[in-house]
Amino acid sequence: MKISFGAKVLVYPIPVWVVGTYDNEGKPNMMTISYGGICSFTPPCVAVSLRKNTHTYGNIVKHKAFTVNVPSEAHARETDYIGITSGRNVDKFAATGLTPVRSKFVDAPTVMEFPLNVECRLIRTVEIGEHTLFIGEIMDFKAEESVLSEDRDESILGMEGIPDIEKVKPILYVPQMGTYHGIGGNLGRAHSIGKTIRGER
Amino acid sequence: MKISFGAKVLVYPIPVWVVGTYDNEGKPNMMTISYGGICSFTPPCVAVSLRKNTHTYGNIVKHKAFTVNVPSEAHARETDYIGITSGRNVDKFAATGLTPVRSKFVDAPTVMEFPLNVECRLIRTVEIGEHTLFIGEIMDFKAEESVLSEDRDESILGMEGIPDIEKVKPILYVPQMGTYHGIGGNLGRAHSIGKTIRGER
Repeated sequence: MKISFGAKVLVYPIPVWVVGTYDNEGKPNMMTISYGGICSFTPPCVAVSLRKNTHTYGNIVKHKAFTVNVPSEAHARETDYIGITSGRNVDKFAATGLTPVRSKFVDAPTVMEFPLNVECRLIRTVEIGEHTLFIGEIMDFKAEESVLSEDRDESILGMEGIPDIEKVKPILYVPQMGTYHGIGGNLGRAHSIGKTIRGER
Repeated sequence: MKISFGAKVLVYPIPVWVVGTYDNEGKPNMMTISYGGICSFTPPCVAVSLRKNTHTYGNIVKHKAFTVNVPSEAHARETDYIGITSGRNVDKFAATGLTPVRSKFVDAPTVMEFPLNVECRLIRTVEIGEHTLFIGEIMDFKAEESVLSEDRDESILGMEGIPDIEKVKPILYVPQMGTYHGIGGNLGRAHSIGKTIRGER
């Protein structure tokens, strides 16, 4: 039986990403978010939603840029800290010992120790109630060499390997339960396992 | 060492959701997506991105409504099928044996067998290159009783329990690897495990 909960923000799974920005003085800052997702393939874009009262909000508006950094399980504690503190009161890079790295294409820092970094140029701002949705065009995607898949299929994207999610070990946020969860095992090939079901395609 | 891949749409983790709509004739349809996320708390909103050439695109534009349905691992095969077929050519509910259920608040069907269902009223449409971002206000959230957490904390949201992600078993899509992955174990409490790091908050 289905239980109705009313108009609640509750849907699984949602990511844990760390948004990197520079503040008014050019000091690097980080903020942990779980409201975000990919929103376009051409141009490649990612969206993140923030409240206006965050330090990061003003930083994105000023610099028209942000980075999305994917923390690994090993940094769950630092990632949580980055989510419960404000860059107005503390230098989160100093407190966590994480390292800001200047981006190649945009005016926002990436986090060296996190295995995946996405450099985004702000292309659209959408106001939705208390949140602002920032749409960023992906200018570059970087991955730590050690998380790349060993069976390197050069035919795919012409890449030197693909980031292996089982090595990246990204984190999920579970709203209301108030927990972080890891990722699990491989459930099968996309665009393939469904072919055993009959029907036109 | 970080390897640069250029302007690629590649970030982990991203969800596997099934979007429910009615077509011009009122026939229920489903489409599997991985471009989406929560985008606002007040009002509660979720965003999904689709290409214009999908059957679902026209359905959302016509009915100003869609549902987000969270499939469980047990339905990975059906979910994949729903992603590689078009409602223009096939009745996906009939082919998969899944059951469309009329929503309480919006003109779009939910999927009975999937543990979480979100009813959304279209409130904003954002064009981004080849994709269209549909922002839906969540009018109701439903969960299958059997996935609710056993330690029911009535103080949280006044709910009759919270959906336990380890029972829901949502699916992740891994871009480029072309796989589906499950969710893993609990990594700790959010807004808590970071408190052991020193620094203002």
